[in-house]
Amino acid sequence: MTYNQPLGGNEMPRFGGTPTMMRLPEAKTAEGLDACFIGVPIDIGASWRAGTRFGPRAIRSESCLLRPFNVATGAAPFASLQVADIGDVAINTFNLPDACRRIREAYVEILRHPVRPITLGGDHSITYPILQAIAAKHGPVALVHLDAHADVSDTMFGEKIAHGTTFRRAHEEALIHPELTFQIGLRGTGYSPDDFNWSRRQGFTVVPADDLWGKHLTTLIDSIRGKIGDVPTYFSFDIDALDPSVAPGTGTPEIGGLTTWQAMQLIRGCRGLNIIGCDVVEVSPSYDLSGNTALTAANLAFELLCVMPGVKYSV
Amino acid sequence: MTYNQPLGGNEMPRFGGTPTMMRLPEAKTAEGLDACFIGVPIDIGASWRAGTRFGPRAIRSESCLLRPFNVATGAAPFASLQVADIGDVAINTFNLPDACRRIREAYVEILRHPVRPITLGGDHSITYPILQAIAAKHGPVALVHLDAHADVSDTMFGEKIAHGTTFRRAHEEALIHPELTFQIGLRGTGYSPDDFNWSRRQGFTVVPADDLWGKHLTTLIDSIRGKIGDVPTYFSFDIDALDPSVAPGTGTPEIGGLTTWQAMQLIRGCRGLNIIGCDVVEVSPSYDLSGNTALTAANLAFELLCVMPGVKYSV
Amino acid sequence: MTYNQPLGGNEMPRFGGTPTMMRLPEAKTAEGLDACFIGVPIDIGASWRAGTRFGPRAIRSESCLLRPFNVATGAAPFASLQVADIGDVAINTFNLPDACRRIREAYVEILRHPVRPITLGGDHSITYPILQAIAAKHGPVALVHLDAHADVSDTMFGEKIAHGTTFRRAHEEALIHPELTFQIGLRGTGYSPDDFNWSRRQGFTVVPADDLWGKHLTTLIDSIRGKIGDVPTYFSFDIDALDPSVAPGTGTPEIGGLTTWQAMQLIRGCRGLNIIGCDVVEVSPSYDLSGNTALTAANLAFELLCVMPGVKYSV
Amino acid sequence: MTYNQPLGGNEMPRFGGTPTMMRLPEAKTAEGLDACFIGVPIDIGASWRAGTRFGPRAIRSESCLLRPFNVATGAAPFASLQVADIGDVAINTFNLPDACRRIREAYVEILRHPVRPITLGGDHSITYPILQAIAAKHGPVALVHLDAHADVSDTMFGEKIAHGTTFRRAHEEALIHPELTFQIGLRGTGYSPDDFNWSRRQGFTVVPADDLWGKHLTTLIDSIRGKIGDVPTYFSFDIDALDPSVAPGTGTPEIGGLTTWQAMQLIRGCRGLNIIGCDVVEVSPSYDLSGNTALTAANLAFELLCVMPGVKYSV
Amino acid sequence: MTYNQPLGGNEMPRFGGTPTMMRLPEAKTAEGLDACFIGVPIDIGASWRAGTRFGPRAIRSESCLLRPFNVATGAAPFASLQVADIGDVAINTFNLPDACRRIREAYVEILRHPVRPITLGGDHSITYPILQAIAAKHGPVALVHLDAHADVSDTMFGEKIAHGTTFRRAHEEALIHPELTFQIGLRGTGYSPDDFNWSRRQGFTVVPADDLWGKHLTTLIDSIRGKIGDVPTYFSFDIDALDPSVAPGTGTPEIGGLTTWQAMQLIRGCRGLNIIGCDVVEVSPSYDLSGNTALTAANLAFELLCVMPGVKYSV
Amino acid sequence: MTYNQPLGGNEMPRFGGTPTMMRLPEAKTAEGLDACFIGVPIDIGASWRAGTRFGPRAIRSESCLLRPFNVATGAAPFASLQVADIGDVAINTFNLPDACRRIREAYVEILRHPVRPITLGGDHSITYPILQAIAAKHGPVALVHLDAHADVSDTMFGEKIAHGTTFRRAHEEALIHPELTFQIGLRGTGYSPDDFNWSRRQGFTVVPADDLWGKHLTTLIDSIRGKIGDVPTYFSFDIDALDPSVAPGTGTPEIGGLTTWQAMQLIRGCRGLNIIGCDVVEVSPSYDLSGNTALTAANLAFELLCVMPGVKYSV
Repeated sequence: MTYNQPLGGNEMPRFGGTPTMMRLPEAKTAEGLDACFIGVPIDIGASWRAGTRFGPRAIRSESCLLRPFNVATGAAPFASLQVADIGDVAINTFNLPDACRRIREAYVEILRHPVRPITLGGDHSITYPILQAIAAKHGPVALVHLDAHADVSDTMFGEKIAHGTTFRRAHEEALIHPELTFQIGLRGTGYSPDDFNWSRRQGFTVVPADDLWGKHLTTLIDSIRGKIGDVPTYFSFDIDALDPSVAPGTGTPEIGGLTTWQAMQLIRGCRGLNIIGCDVVEVSPSYDLSGNTALTAANLAFELLCVMPGVKYSV
Repeated sequence: MTYNQPLGGNEMPRFGGTPTMMRLPEAKTAEGLDACFIGVPIDIGASWRAGTRFGPRAIRSESCLLRPFNVATGAAPFASLQVADIGDVAINTFNLPDACRRIREAYVEILRHPVRPITLGGDHSITYPILQAIAAKHGPVALVHLDAHADVSDTMFGEKIAHGTTFRRAHEEALIHPELTFQIGLRGTGYSPDDFNWSRRQGFTVVPADDLWGKHLTTLIDSIRGKIGDVPTYFSFDIDALDPSVAPGTGTPEIGGLTTWQAMQLIRGCRGLNIIGCDVVEVSPSYDLSGNTALTAANLAFELLCVMPGVKYSV
Repeated sequence: MTYNQPLGGNEMPRFGGTPTMMRLPEAKTAEGLDACFIGVPIDIGASWRAGTRFGPRAIRSESCLLRPFNVATGAAPFASLQVADIGDVAINTFNLPDACRRIREAYVEILRHPVRPITLGGDHSITYPILQAIAAKHGPVALVHLDAHADVSDTMFGEKIAHGTTFRRAHEEALIHPELTFQIGLRGTGYSPDDFNWSRRQGFTVVPADDLWGKHLTTLIDSIRGKIGDVPTYFSFDIDALDPSVAPGTGTPEIGGLTTWQAMQLIRGCRGLNIIGCDVVEVSPSYDLSGNTALTAANLAFELLCVMPGVKYSV
Repeated sequence: MTYNQPLGGNEMPRFGGTPTMMRLPEAKTAEGLDACFIGVPIDIGASWRAGTRFGPRAIRSESCLLRPFNVATGAAPFASLQVADIGDVAINTFNLPDACRRIREAYVEILRHPVRPITLGGDHSITYPILQAIAAKHGPVALVHLDAHADVSDTMFGEKIAHGTTFRRAHEEALIHPELTFQIGLRGTGYSPDDFNWSRRQGFTVVPADDLWGKHLTTLIDSIRGKIGDVPTYFSFDIDALDPSVAPGTGTPEIGGLTTWQAMQLIRGCRGLNIIGCDVVEVSPSYDLSGNTALTAANLAFELLCVMPGVKYSV
Repeated sequence: MTYNQPLGGNEMPRFGGTPTMMRLPEAKTAEGLDACFIGVPIDIGASWRAGTRFGPRAIRSESCLLRPFNVATGAAPFASLQVADIGDVAINTFNLPDACRRIREAYVEILRHPVRPITLGGDHSITYPILQAIAAKHGPVALVHLDAHADVSDTMFGEKIAHGTTFRRAHEEALIHPELTFQIGLRGTGYSPDDFNWSRRQGFTVVPADDLWGKHLTTLIDSIRGKIGDVPTYFSFDIDALDPSVAPGTGTPEIGGLTTWQAMQLIRGCRGLNIIGCDVVEVSPSYDLSGNTALTAANLAFELLCVMPGVKYSV
Repeated sequence: MTYNQPLGGNEMPRFGGTPTMMRLPEAKTAEGLDACFIGVPIDIGASWRAGTRFGPRAIRSESCLLRPFNVATGAAPFASLQVADIGDVAINTFNLPDACRRIREAYVEILRHPVRPITLGGDHSITYPILQAIAAKHGPVALVHLDAHADVSDTMFGEKIAHGTTFRRAHEEALIHPELTFQIGLRGTGYSPDDFNWSRRQGFTVVPADDLWGKHLTTLIDSIRGKIGDVPTYFSFDIDALDPSVAPGTGTPEIGGLTTWQAMQLIRGCRGLNIIGCDVVEVSPSYDLSGNTALTAANLAFELLCVMPGVKYSV
């Protein structure tokens, strides 16, 4: 079998050619794919700075710098997985519930195929319909959730759907295993002094950012991996889990966040988990003048691909 | 009677103090006011670049440079009108129809007072509920509409409310007099070769930008003023009527637009009209790195105040 | 016959989907096309600010805002021409002569088909190999050249190929008809007091920018069109022909340039000419923070498409 | 008693409403307040990049994202303290000594009330007159001073007042206890090889940044807290204490600075001190394109509020 | 005699080498020079946005793109004048009156030589001490003053010296001929409805910007030139005379300003006047992200050099 | 003997005066110098983002903030070394091999003097000709190489010279001792899973970035220093060795890089080595909106000067 390969820099300069994710071929559907990149360009679930509607495009554009091998880990994802960029979901920019319906339906369709989608957001409200589709296929999943915020509000401005209610909804609809839900990197000011305790009361594990400052995270993720075992797992990476120095281009930045190397340790430590889908969300290009938030997201999406089941490692 | 005065630069440096519009006092309601500035911070009606939710804040911030007199025209609005900044409408960021309901209700409440609101947007979808409230009080109004786009689509992505459907809705609900509706500055690519003809078929007067290139606009506005006479008139200024060189910070820029001096000629020429409300919309600060789009909007809002009925002129 | 249509905003939001030029389908070759968009992403011919290597990508990205009809002129290019985006030429980033060879060969291949290429640059050195390929097929061509600079230096830093030598080379190799070469918008400081006279001595017509300040250009282009008649014509638009207020994102900006409406008058006035190819070059995105230079280039490329022979007009 | 509460995001979207600090009510004086936020918008004491005159406005604008509780520490400052934003000091932009006089007089007036002022700067020259007013009430104070620079020059360009002479003046006038003065984060190039030794000779404790690289700072601040005991203490936070990656928007950035989590450890460790005033200074918005330096300053000012005596903790 | 020549682009790429004005040689004094470029890097006279302290450096940096001949006018200034860049005046950043004293003394020293200084600002307060030195040598001078503001306030915040009082001081001290003082481009909001009438009452000629919109200015400057005759003349160009679209990087932008071509017409029309000094002021690089405001200033300074008495013309 | 001293901030404000490196005197040649700063302004060896041609100018401009002493280490380089800024190499912007020839010849000329050059780049291709000149004088050298990339490709796009082939060429030509070559900070995606093993097979020591995350690097550099002993050593610092949060302004950023304090530990640990030359390369100002990447490079270049043999230390 021949696997799709990213277009090489010696065939076409990296600033030329169609800016698909990692310069992979485009595919119209997920048929025949083991993993796929997919964009959900939306920002109307955001409560502070807007702009994540341009997130997928910016991440793809910066991803053109990426080369196909993960030298640090030895992962060679394109040697054993069929991967393509299947484009964007046609969301409804003016109506959030309808956008969520469209996302859910698009993922139900995608998941008819045995593919693991890597989603490029978009604000975090998109993870709710994605998890609906995921759970419809796999049942409740384990969740590794990197974020500055727990996103477990009941409503925002009276609305049930917004980027701060995602995991409340997911829990209510039993899309996730609460005891296998890990929220990592939480911090910042809150609406009540025990903001994170709602999560804890549901059985989620909360790891605030201030417990992680300056630390290596391999032990943490090893422990999480041990608890999850082979339960199907979704990985949701809100880019604001990272420190604003690393990821300025996001909607609700909070100081004191994770470093990129901590993020890479967490993702790399997921090797062995049965990740059945994942996302990198909340990249807002209009606040990312250097482009480096999008570049970071592109790298993290690649690292997620590298820990998908079935990836060949040379080391 | 004592009129509110903008805080002077010799009392507090212009970069200090609360950044209300023109450094005017804040008021909780429109009671006792002849005119008021009011913000409607929303962007979920936008179809391309987002960010107008921060428009009112940016316009107010830049407006702190403005001094109280219009030297070119002699207008001294604060010598004969009671003016204040009454703050922002608490829109619903996640639900456009509900946001429009909130805007309409807010303006109905404001318009219980004999005040002329000058609205700072916000994307152009806000003009629809404002016109609903205006027409509820005044009946159908004449409309002077500066814009790159006609905003008369029936739906956008299937939705009846969006920043491109405003004047279709206004016409359907008889909020405006079609034969006294003037759309000025239209241009750009379109969805059909006769995009502007729908407007014309309803009786609107369309003045495309290319008819205005390089020309003084005093004759045009004199003619419009003659046609409108003393019919209550609403003035809606989409900042993208201006050329992108002048107003880069907007959501859907179109090349070949108006200059600021043409815009000022148009507004100044409205002196004598019975303007019962107006707006300056579509300023998107995250695309306005110099701040000059917001500064332009602040100046235009001031020029609009200067042509309100009752303003004293020294010249 | 079915013509390719740009992807509509109601099928996929404009910030979603593959950012091809105007959201047209991609094609691998020019076969079956009447006109094509093509990128040449290079900047190593630039003498001052770099960055035009990202020009094609930025122009395509901003072009996603464009809708398919030219409302001002009535042109409906996608109603009678088969148009696609055929991607980028794989230039050699490290070697300018080899890059030029690659460009020339790519265009020779493209021009085996009866297609009119609309090129997105890239610095202006690319027009030299394009004209070589054009002249190889059509013989010497008439040239309408909008630019701040004449680009007729013999060498730059001793090199024969650079963005300032293009039309010297083209003339030496008889790729253009000197008496049908029109250089419009020239200005700025020069290497000698009679910088523009070399062009004139070859028989070129030089129209300095200061002859055009504040003027409508319909008469000028009518006269040029009359002189050229039906001679095959190439149109080269260096974005620095425009004033830096309009087009800040370019490598060698010169104050006192053309307005966008003058540029549109010039292009629209070319209707009736036998344009066999054209380009828009010198967009440098890293100096174009608002994106509006790229947006302008996208609009100008569309306007050029609209005056291609065979385009249907509704007006 | 009812305490002022920040305006909630469900009452008014965070991008709407008056941008006071943390969306607190404004107060005209400090009467009845336990703590207050106050701006000193000045930059004419700066020696390199200017722009801190817009610091207070930018900090307040970004502070609108902050919610009222400190989830990490359990602090609920608005449950037991009366806090308001009392606006800006009307400094003289053209005359630094007169500006300092105005600041001193304003603080003397404020300190007639039993209030703890949290100052938003402004360049660091403002801390001199603030300390004059503080010492006039409290006598000499302990000082916790985070900064890249010691700010103990005798003169700058011959002037006694500038942002680099503040603590020399404070020491000369016995406004601070030298043996209870702690300068933390000093680094960078200097005017002499023993730049920091002047401080040491006066009895100050100097903790250079390179002693802190990669370390947790809880032990350091515990030790300082132990030494200070209940002596009235002033906390001065020059944002350039932080690394430029975290706080690019400042006038004299120095590489190798503190992380935000180190800063938070230092501030949180001050709980128990008798802080009678504090400031966050040197935020220069025109060099802070993402807004994140101002956001960081807003968070640090909130963390300072959280360690004020009398704050209720839920944990 | 050998005249200094700008370093050519074929000797050293324009982005290399010392960024003196136009890449001219540096000189320590004005001895032997006919004209000189000189910087006055200050911004503490500014009332709104700061940053002009970096103006001279930015103008010089962008000036490296300029070539030695004025193709439009035929001026060859380096063929008949000895010109150098004599560096910057060592102003006092912390004390405006002392800075003015230093500027005055520096210019008195420079003017011991028969040189015509072309000053790069710096905020507009610098023109006051420059005029003091000019008048000390030449007596009162004619003044051509391009600006958005009249700069004739008596005091600002109680201070006699600031960027808005310059020409009041100059008039009081009889540094200028009132009846030969021409203020061109005035506009914007004012402190009183007859802001410009103070100037008129002194005998100044005021030409508001709105009288110039869309017009060629050759007639205006011809008339001014006729009135001035051979009276020694100073030309002061505040960059905010230009429209903010052209010159965003300035401290107090006002919409509806001059175009660059109008500015060039005004300067070029000064040929024949006895210009004994001139300045280009108020460029604020931190608000000039594209660099084009500085580039514009560099071009205008060059145009001013080209109309100095004694310049050779090839046309 | 009198040593050149940087111009002090009390003689001329730091934003005034000629922006040479650290405000040192300029010298035309290296005669009489112990160390020199020199720029190589080129970017045509870059494969992704361009712009390093403006690197030397930006680094010098930001270096004006630096004061002459290294307070952390006690180094007083200007007390015992004669140092100057000798300007830029006149590279050929349009031809990379010729540019390399020019660089090599320039360095051969410089190295006729017993001077240690500190080079400000420019893209990394410049280190190849510099090493040719270095080795021509000193024979093969030890190499301390900080970088995100190994830069050991055989060709890029078929070319032997580019910024990714530098150390392959250096090794082939025996310009470096492979067993004394240390590549530190390598990371990112690669062209093969064993990208770094080519280096290892030649005998280079490779220290990937992920081995260094969160660690102090004094032990590492002590060990390297021990191995090198007194072998003449070249130090090449690609700014992309640093994390993109610290150094956004570079052409090929890779997440997970070094902190500035790690970089300073590495450089400071080189004290005692016989450094005969060094460079700081790949600063791309158009992606460095805050200027802080250039500022970082300026500091690192200064730190390199401080560890040159012969520097006096006060501590």
